Amino acid sequence: MEREHNLVPEDAWWKHYLYRIIYRSDTKLGKLFDVILLLLILVSTAIIMMESIPWLDKRYHLTFLILEWIISILFSIEYATRIAVVKNKRHYIFSFFGIIDFLSLIPFYLSFFFPVTKYFLIFRMLRMLRVFRVFNLMDFMNDGSVIVRALKNSSRKIYIFLLFLIIFSVIVGSMMFMVEGGRPGFETIPQSIYWAVVTVTTVGYGDVSPITPMGKFFAVVLMLAGYSIIAVPTGIVTAEMRNKRQNLEKICDRCGNEDIDDDARYCKQCGKKLA
Amino acid sequence: MEREHNLVPEDAWWKHYLYRIIYRSDTKLGKLFDVILLLLILVSTAIIMMESIPWLDKRYHLTFLILEWIISILFSIEYATRIAVVKNKRHYIFSFFGIIDFLSLIPFYLSFFFPVTKYFLIFRMLRMLRVFRVFNLMDFMNDGSVIVRALKNSSRKIYIFLLFLIIFSVIVGSMMFMVEGGRPGFETIPQSIYWAVVTVTTVGYGDVSPITPMGKFFAVVLMLAGYSIIAVPTGIVTAEMRNKRQNLEKICDRCGNEDIDDDARYCKQCGKKLA
Amino acid sequence: MEREHNLVPEDAWWKHYLYRIIYRSDTKLGKLFDVILLLLILVSTAIIMMESIPWLDKRYHLTFLILEWIISILFSIEYATRIAVVKNKRHYIFSFFGIIDFLSLIPFYLSFFFPVTKYFLIFRMLRMLRVFRVFNLMDFMNDGSVIVRALKNSSRKIYIFLLFLIIFSVIVGSMMFMVEGGRPGFETIPQSIYWAVVTVTTVGYGDVSPITPMGKFFAVVLMLAGYSIIAVPTGIVTAEMRNKRQNLEKICDRCGNEDIDDDARYCKQCGKKLA
Amino acid sequence: MEREHNLVPEDAWWKHYLYRIIYRSDTKLGKLFDVILLLLILVSTAIIMMESIPWLDKRYHLTFLILEWIISILFSIEYATRIAVVKNKRHYIFSFFGIIDFLSLIPFYLSFFFPVTKYFLIFRMLRMLRVFRVFNLMDFMNDGSVIVRALKNSSRKIYIFLLFLIIFSVIVGSMMFMVEGGRPGFETIPQSIYWAVVTVTTVGYGDVSPITPMGKFFAVVLMLAGYSIIAVPTGIVTAEMRNKRQNLEKICDRCGNEDIDDDARYCKQCGKKLA
Repeated sequence: MEREHNLVPEDAWWKHYLYRIIYRSDTKLGKLFDVILLLLILVSTAIIMMESIPWLDKRYHLTFLILEWIISILFSIEYATRIAVVKNKRHYIFSFFGIIDFLSLIPFYLSFFFPVTKYFLIFRMLRMLRVFRVFNLMDFMNDGSVIVRALKNSSRKIYIFLLFLIIFSVIVGSMMFMVEGGRPGFETIPQSIYWAVVTVTTVGYGDVSPITPMGKFFAVVLMLAGYSIIAVPTGIVTAEMRNKRQNLEKICDRCGNEDIDDDARYCKQCGKKLA
Repeated sequence: MEREHNLVPEDAWWKHYLYRIIYRSDTKLGKLFDVILLLLILVSTAIIMMESIPWLDKRYHLTFLILEWIISILFSIEYATRIAVVKNKRHYIFSFFGIIDFLSLIPFYLSFFFPVTKYFLIFRMLRMLRVFRVFNLMDFMNDGSVIVRALKNSSRKIYIFLLFLIIFSVIVGSMMFMVEGGRPGFETIPQSIYWAVVTVTTVGYGDVSPITPMGKFFAVVLMLAGYSIIAVPTGIVTAEMRNKRQNLEKICDRCGNEDIDDDARYCKQCGKKLA
Repeated sequence: MEREHNLVPEDAWWKHYLYRIIYRSDTKLGKLFDVILLLLILVSTAIIMMESIPWLDKRYHLTFLILEWIISILFSIEYATRIAVVKNKRHYIFSFFGIIDFLSLIPFYLSFFFPVTKYFLIFRMLRMLRVFRVFNLMDFMNDGSVIVRALKNSSRKIYIFLLFLIIFSVIVGSMMFMVEGGRPGFETIPQSIYWAVVTVTTVGYGDVSPITPMGKFFAVVLMLAGYSIIAVPTGIVTAEMRNKRQNLEKICDRCGNEDIDDDARYCKQCGKKLA
Repeated sequence: MEREHNLVPEDAWWKHYLYRIIYRSDTKLGKLFDVILLLLILVSTAIIMMESIPWLDKRYHLTFLILEWIISILFSIEYATRIAVVKNKRHYIFSFFGIIDFLSLIPFYLSFFFPVTKYFLIFRMLRMLRVFRVFNLMDFMNDGSVIVRALKNSSRKIYIFLLFLIIFSVIVGSMMFMVEGGRPGFETIPQSIYWAVVTVTTVGYGDVSPITPMGKFFAVVLMLAGYSIIAVPTGIVTAEMRNKRQNLEKICDRCGNEDIDDDARYCKQCGKKLA
């Protein structure tokens, strides 16, 4: 994700040293740092969850508070260090992970003024995405990026699909409002749209469901239609994922065959040894 | 969508001028027109929704009424102008968007006589489909048309699938009616069919669910069967979408065939070597 | 579906005549016959449904009874004629449609002795599958058979998948029985299995749902697992459908290219005119 | 699954004899053994289920107990024999099926001390996976292994997807906790996460559903997002399944490479021309 190559510092030796520990994971200390980070994130997330449970919060309120303080201070130090040791500071601050690092700190300081913002600390979980590096698996990153790339490439089609879905739900919801009148769950058009989305996405809570025979008939038509629609996003992503599968750089320079597996050493069409 | 090329007017200069603004979006005024249109549609949709919420309607009834009048009159003028400036009037009136433009006006005038029809104004949202042009993204249109084409090409298979699904649901519903007798939710065959559709499409409201052990066993069999069936529409659309991933820029310069696969070296219609 | 070619009668001229009307739809009378058949099936189905609605049955009981008698007698005559005019009688009787024709008659006669069997008359809907011919669309048949063939070819994989799903549901259900003890909906193992199937297939009625925190945690794990499982049948059918897409008979006899679209007149690889 | 080739015993003749019966199914006795094993597993599973139903257990308690004893003793003997006749004992004991065989015995003996463990006997169902051999269908095994291999190959992508899904659900759940406050079903963050998972996976029990307009709006956004996400695992497995549709009969006779695509003409590992 993060293009860390641009961030190599050039000044003091200790910056170099800390940079390697914090931003890389190819040294023992770097790996240790990542593991501790991962643990702190998990502990922080667990605390936020447990604080929301009344009887747990009552019993361990002070413990939670102290731990939250410690972790938040540690994260603050880490954030400051990250900025200090990186050369291209602006690049880091406005990078994907830079923003997440910032967002995972700010609710703590804001919560002194607005207590409810405390729960935004849950965004710390997003930091976990970074710690994929701990597992040091380039392949993992590759697999992840295949998914991300497929989603990115099909994002425009998915936007169109979502826009269509929203228009469809609004219209269907309004029609259902006319059919089911002011019956419970269909009192207003927005509520009927809520029902339409719950139905088309096949979630089907059942907190709102058609009551009149006419409404049920209408719902049946909608469900059958939705059942065909569900195929569309799947088709989009699948087609894209298929497209992005093969190693796109590889090509046989004798016969021009482009369908070359990752583990292939010879072209399967002409038998030429691949470079 | 709309083949606007056939609609070029040839008479008065002001018709030319208005035509470009209304039907195209390659001028500054044309874009402004589209943006205003988009806003009016959104405002109109929001008003209809808010009117359905009693306390909002009570408070702002007059405001809503006035705004609705203004927008409807503006849309009426727009519709009249569209017909006036287009050369092939019949073509426009009976085109997809021509019908939508008409349908988004008529409920307003009908609502003087039949108040309930007011909610049909929600069809105005469909006009939004046209305003894709605002974003001026040919690619967006292409992506959209890829989806539309894939659905069109697989529509016959989906019809067959839906017909099968309906027959399946009717039979399963009737069998469940025999099993669950007159228990709540299974009082009549149509109600049992409603349950069958809710189950097979995996919506599962839970307003109706099997009660007897026998009925539950039957439901389990149905769910497992439905779970395999869900794969069918997905398979159809995916296969079709894969199939139609042609290169949209490619075109045969001898016969004008636009349906050219990415890996094609010769036009499949006239046999000409492609550049 | 039905291989009607083997059924050509060779004796009396009236058999020939009736055969063409009943089994084919390439004559005017043949088409009329199919349309009437389709209507009778729809009327018959509608009657069975309406009979199950108490107030409708009370009001029109006699009408329904008479119509049912008429249609059943007509179907009996048709069935007898079908057997009479076909040469290979055994072949017809034990063919897919022969069995359906029989099954759609027998509940009527059985209902004199066991009234409940009347509802089996709903199987008459299956006869509709035959009347696809009315629409005289060979393409429709082709599209249908593509789906059927894809399902047939992947049936063994789907069986394995279903077997795995059943074993999985039984084990998960039993484990949930241990977790949720005798709480409502989890009184016995079969009931817990019912819950597991409802959850894994994402139907989610909500008539049974986990109550204890432990049970909810368990359900979350199951749902996430089920979410990955849902991809399997889809993958199977999609892969199979893709495989069976191209016109398998067509092949370019110059370059051996097998990827030839239905509408292709020239090979897209070497430009050769196709036969 | 099990690589039985390594397990061939070399000592006494009776070991050879029993080995063939127990581990293979190419003799009459071997097939009989498998069929009896399958029946015992089914009976054992049925007993465990029926024991959980109070009125059945009350009536047939003794019968169930005796049958359970008999089957468990038979399974114990079988397990001992399996170990006795196999040459590479450690290999068997720690193989997939070796562990299952052990797990399907141990709950019986443990249940003398901890009665609740009895229900773990349900794991015996997993033994059914072995008895696929009874049907003696190599093709069945092939089809099964295609699915297993596709899942294995895409497992890393699915792990990433699940990790993302968990992080997503935790964050969405926490945000919903802030929106819906302490309303029923949203009392704590873990409960809100439970709701988020139920919604994103489209299960939708309805035991917890949003109540405030704000919460409903939030749920609608989540559902539409989840609707696009559902496509990802499907895309992964489908792409993998397509990829691995190799010809299972083909093998390179120089290097023994078995991973050969249908359209391959040369071995991709050693470059040898394939027959």
